[in-house]
Amino acid sequence: MENTNEKTVTASLIIIGNEILSGRTVDANLSHLAKVLGEVGIRLAEARVVPDDEGDIIAAVNACRVMHNYVFTTGGIGPTHDDITSACIAKAFDRPFGRNAEAEARLLAYYPPEKVNDARMSMADMPEGVTLIDNPVSTAPGFRIENVFVMAGVPKIMQAMLDMILPSLEGGAKTLSRSITIFLPEGELAMPLGELQADYPDLEIGSYPFFSTRGPSSTIVLRGIDLERIDQAAEELLGIARAKEAETHEGPAPA
Amino acid sequence: MENTNEKTVTASLIIIGNEILSGRTVDANLSHLAKVLGEVGIRLAEARVVPDDEGDIIAAVNACRVMHNYVFTTGGIGPTHDDITSACIAKAFDRPFGRNAEAEARLLAYYPPEKVNDARMSMADMPEGVTLIDNPVSTAPGFRIENVFVMAGVPKIMQAMLDMILPSLEGGAKTLSRSITIFLPEGELAMPLGELQADYPDLEIGSYPFFSTRGPSSTIVLRGIDLERIDQAAEELLGIARAKEAETHEGPAPA
Repeated sequence: MENTNEKTVTASLIIIGNEILSGRTVDANLSHLAKVLGEVGIRLAEARVVPDDEGDIIAAVNACRVMHNYVFTTGGIGPTHDDITSACIAKAFDRPFGRNAEAEARLLAYYPPEKVNDARMSMADMPEGVTLIDNPVSTAPGFRIENVFVMAGVPKIMQAMLDMILPSLEGGAKTLSRSITIFLPEGELAMPLGELQADYPDLEIGSYPFFSTRGPSSTIVLRGIDLERIDQAAEELLGIARAKEAETHEGPAPA
Repeated sequence: MENTNEKTVTASLIIIGNEILSGRTVDANLSHLAKVLGEVGIRLAEARVVPDDEGDIIAAVNACRVMHNYVFTTGGIGPTHDDITSACIAKAFDRPFGRNAEAEARLLAYYPPEKVNDARMSMADMPEGVTLIDNPVSTAPGFRIENVFVMAGVPKIMQAMLDMILPSLEGGAKTLSRSITIFLPEGELAMPLGELQADYPDLEIGSYPFFSTRGPSSTIVLRGIDLERIDQAAEELLGIARAKEAETHEGPAPA
């Protein structure tokens, strides 16, 4: 999957699960998806966390799928009563929901006969007309329906499914970035940074404050699709730091 | 803040920042907010992650503030050019945006004169008629406007601001929970769990699979507002595990 044209391709992520909204589980899928998509020129433009609620899931899927090139969902495709994602996706697309023969065959091949039960086989219930997403970890597949990719929530499985999906995605211009940490509070840098941003409207210049052992510090991230422009802006940024006699560090905040 | 009536009070969180959507930064505020709100009977019902984009921020704020009792935002209130949250909130509420005298006075008292600059003072620019949220870490305040609380994104500051906000929130029935880990894959538990959920419609029974050293395992979370009912359901759940000769562990997945 290589594509060097400059169109913008965006995606959204819908994280489904009460456990995230109760604070029990800290999501680990967003940052992984963002990085992997970024590498192939797809920009994660939005994420939503919704509970295991039919109305909320349907509303989020239908809002996101018309706004972005791709939508990814995580969570809610296991065998238990609270796994309602697949049924909700069928409703969102107004498609019949029922047993997918290929998914059923995979599950029957995977589980020894004494482990086969209705709950496990319910993982083969999907909207009609989907394309399966292989699950090399635990077999029960995800699926693609139009521009929506339905994945597991367990990070190990989600990551494996994403690897399977990746070759089928069409990316746009790849976003490149460079991070420079400056040991100054961002209030000292804000004015020249604003001027730098004005001089480089083709770049996205982000400023991220943090507390280091040397006091309030800032990591500046330069993002864009043209590495030469990023490097030019970085040189100017290093000049700004030198003029303020501030130490710098190439890369994100050091530990 | 004690309130034992049983009304449902919900909140949403809007996480503002390109750094989250690029995968550079992993959000740490959602789970903290969820837990703190849960303790005072406010249910986090939704979260959205939006980029540093005026249209996206305004749309998210206006969608969430009519759906939930409270809306919390994190991020984008620092001194740099990419900190646009306050101006967007003013537009979302159609209120004038300008220097807040009290916030200005606090910043002038905090910074030594040689540190005062336009960028830092811009942190006192807010929508008209807001209530300030104290910032005991670095002074620059957040603010409340109607049911929307605008907080910093740096976790240390966000947590301090949330502590300041908490006494002003009115909670509903507190959600209580008990977690029981069962060393069985959730496919083995799904059917009796579904029956248990049907018998306890007043509880929310969640099943969370994970890989333990003893193989695929499940943590079952029982949530509700009546501890007696939770304990009853937990006894039945332990009975289900015993009948399957499975080991159990009170609490979330052990390390």
